[in-house]
Amino acid sequence: MSFARLVQLHLLQGRWAAHRRAPPLRTDRKSYAAGEQSRGLDRAVGAFRAVTGDEGVSVGDAVREQHGRDESVHSCRPPDVVVWPRSVEEVSALARICHHHRLPIIPFGTGTGLEGGVGALKGGVCFDLRKMDRVLDLHAEDFDVTVEPGVTRTALNSHLRDSGLWFPVDPGADASLCGMAATSASGTNAVRYGTMRENVLNLEVVLADGTVFHTAGRGRRPRKTSAGYNLTNLFVGSEGTLGILTKATLRLYGIPEAMVSAVCSFPSVQAAVDSTVQILQCGIPIARIEFLDDVMIDACNRYSRLSYPTSPTLFLEFHGSERSLEEQVSMAEELAGANGGSDFSWARDAETRGKLWKARHDAWYAALALRPGCKAYSTDVCVPLSRLPQIIVETKADLIKNKLTGPIAGHVGDGNFHCLMVLDPDDPAEVQRVHEFTNRLARRALALDGTCTGEHGVGLGKRALLREEVGPQAMEVMEALKASLDPKNLMNPGKVL
Amino acid sequence: MSFARLVQLHLLQGRWAAHRRAPPLRTDRKSYAAGEQSRGLDRAVGAFRAVTGDEGVSVGDAVREQHGRDESVHSCRPPDVVVWPRSVEEVSALARICHHHRLPIIPFGTGTGLEGGVGALKGGVCFDLRKMDRVLDLHAEDFDVTVEPGVTRTALNSHLRDSGLWFPVDPGADASLCGMAATSASGTNAVRYGTMRENVLNLEVVLADGTVFHTAGRGRRPRKTSAGYNLTNLFVGSEGTLGILTKATLRLYGIPEAMVSAVCSFPSVQAAVDSTVQILQCGIPIARIEFLDDVMIDACNRYSRLSYPTSPTLFLEFHGSERSLEEQVSMAEELAGANGGSDFSWARDAETRGKLWKARHDAWYAALALRPGCKAYSTDVCVPLSRLPQIIVETKADLIKNKLTGPIAGHVGDGNFHCLMVLDPDDPAEVQRVHEFTNRLARRALALDGTCTGEHGVGLGKRALLREEVGPQAMEVMEALKASLDPKNLMNPGKVL
Repeated sequence: MSFARLVQLHLLQGRWAAHRRAPPLRTDRKSYAAGEQSRGLDRAVGAFRAVTGDEGVSVGDAVREQHGRDESVHSCRPPDVVVWPRSVEEVSALARICHHHRLPIIPFGTGTGLEGGVGALKGGVCFDLRKMDRVLDLHAEDFDVTVEPGVTRTALNSHLRDSGLWFPVDPGADASLCGMAATSASGTNAVRYGTMRENVLNLEVVLADGTVFHTAGRGRRPRKTSAGYNLTNLFVGSEGTLGILTKATLRLYGIPEAMVSAVCSFPSVQAAVDSTVQILQCGIPIARIEFLDDVMIDACNRYSRLSYPTSPTLFLEFHGSERSLEEQVSMAEELAGANGGSDFSWARDAETRGKLWKARHDAWYAALALRPGCKAYSTDVCVPLSRLPQIIVETKADLIKNKLTGPIAGHVGDGNFHCLMVLDPDDPAEVQRVHEFTNRLARRALALDGTCTGEHGVGLGKRALLREEVGPQAMEVMEALKASLDPKNLMNPGKVL
Repeated sequence: MSFARLVQLHLLQGRWAAHRRAPPLRTDRKSYAAGEQSRGLDRAVGAFRAVTGDEGVSVGDAVREQHGRDESVHSCRPPDVVVWPRSVEEVSALARICHHHRLPIIPFGTGTGLEGGVGALKGGVCFDLRKMDRVLDLHAEDFDVTVEPGVTRTALNSHLRDSGLWFPVDPGADASLCGMAATSASGTNAVRYGTMRENVLNLEVVLADGTVFHTAGRGRRPRKTSAGYNLTNLFVGSEGTLGILTKATLRLYGIPEAMVSAVCSFPSVQAAVDSTVQILQCGIPIARIEFLDDVMIDACNRYSRLSYPTSPTLFLEFHGSERSLEEQVSMAEELAGANGGSDFSWARDAETRGKLWKARHDAWYAALALRPGCKAYSTDVCVPLSRLPQIIVETKADLIKNKLTGPIAGHVGDGNFHCLMVLDPDDPAEVQRVHEFTNRLARRALALDGTCTGEHGVGLGKRALLREEVGPQAMEVMEALKASLDPKNLMNPGKVL
């Protein structure tokens, strides 16, 4: 069931306004599984306390409610209990207790996901991993570091400040790095540095039965390996449905000597995308290349008091040495100019770059400001580059025809773009129109050889689309893998598959 | 059992000289499984002929023998029958027959593997995929192409010649691209362009029971995706033990505007590795950075009539625009010089670059020429960059102490290096010394956070080392995945696990 359908059901049941109020423990049968699971839970909570101490377990309504939602519009589905392990040994001990009592396990990073991945559909135990927040084993010469699951992207980069290194994957939110691994996150820098798939070298994983293992072997961190099955990349993107990620070893990069940012307007979507393809084809090692459509730029102008031309726009960033940047920038300007690009703005120092990119960074809030009081939902299709103009043009026509607000921002170098759907949750007709629109958009992407999710994951809302995307045989393979590693279906049940 | 142990057993049994003579079909119980499998085979061969026609099936001794070995020193283990399917439908039909009769299935690309991956340990059916050799669906604007499993690396690059694109992964041999995917191959360009893991977008796979599916969904080719489990990277590196790869969709790259090659000598291994780390740390987008030790350079000088100083040497290659190359080259030269690098040679045009790199390209033959009549086996450890000087120094001391010939060539930017062990297969004491040396080397790599195989795969000889490397829990996970996708253990049995 998609998010919009869930929203709609809640509306129909008159529960939308109440969705922030978590049901009390033990009495509400919706969130508190009946029968065996319920009795198991009573016994389990005591056992949890023996592992983590009293302060590591909570059954309080407010706490459970905080852990039942992410940043999406999916309704809150609070777990029955929240635990805060402090070490992998505690995670393993807690998992064994859950396994014994057949309680669902939902890993929780920062709650910044966008597809409802942390909702406790079948009740169970939320593992909040934020107390495990140490940066371990920085090997600057080897460009790698190992982090515990509570370490966020910005916390890691603060830690690295004096090392000359950074971790470039940037989904926008200050997500935990293990959470980013779990959803195969990426963001604006992926065109140059890759996604989490390319940047995780090793993971420590706790399976549903408490087994602890390392996907590439304990402590291993070669830059490449052909040793056995690629377990690392099976767990990257598994969205908590195969195991709990308790450590990640990540690739790091040298901080570029210099950066240059640029903004450029185009007469059409086609012209902006043609420029992108040509920039990539020329081998210009562009670090970011972001597309904003005319509606998005207009929203940003209003929200951030800017005055960019209201037309399809590219935001670019170049990383490199001073000299190499000169060449990159002049080549990119030439290519963009040949495609009708105009109104270039360039920025070199950090402050001016920050101002230039402000429009892009504030896009989410600018979209929300278009309709105060509304909520936002981000679509996430990704298609081959050459298909971008067609899908964006068709999608904009679809939005207009159906009277929907959905400014477009995209990681155009990867073919990935988002419609930031701004909707009134109290208008069931609009909710339904958004639901139908997002499905049409996903199917448009599938028809153009693309995917329904480039970086947000499947979570709750895209399970039916996933099946359409990969086909029944691939789904059977995924289900077989899931059953082999989690035969009791305890790991984040109801997600992905 | 490692390759050397196998060699030794053959020696002890007096069979080494006879290993090229394949046993005749039906009479030799070593290669021709007894009982049910034997009776099943009789019936299966007729069914195979109904699928592929008579010309698509062979039980001839010479043909079986050709398909029972790769380029390693592992002894020949011929399959019972070889089939040549012409389409995925035929592959599926043949697999269903094998599945029905419980016959092992061994996929065969070009036979250029280095770890005995194609040996039919339990007899069975070799699927030679070379008749499926079409390049399909080139999307130049999207930088992707789909190939059938018989397409080799150089065949693809010939096909791409006029498109301005190329596929850069280069393991040396002219391997099939699906074979390269199956072993997670890489080679000299990986430091810039990644390995097969980073460059396969989608795979068509036939499972042991004949099920056909696409790891990312049929026809899908977005540059990134978060849709469900990463099946693509589960099959990349699975060495034929999970399914047969019948199509691969690959990432392509723009052919660089210009290339520059260079050679530089160093006073020590440490100085060469320090230069490498600094070049990477400065963000110089080096395309290749290859290390040859003094013994290897000496062998190359003799074999290729060159006169490089007999000291640790780096071979470098830079790809980019004319202007960016100038800067890359001057920065690299400065860094190398600061570490005592000397005797620089630079080359820009294709012919001079070819001459300069000849020493590196001929390394395997140069090593063999050190001891005419001997065979070669290549080790394949990979460690974090900072550990390279230690492991190379210790390994060179080990070679000298044990009177072994093993010149070293390495993809130093990835921390991956090979000892090209030249050994006399008729000297059981030397075979034993090589066996013990390769195990010591692998364990040295493991002690330094590395892997026993950076790019050749596990195959036959490294199964025990894989277990040491990843630990018993990760092995259990791999075994569970294998059992879930191939419950009858028909896919390339006896490899990897």
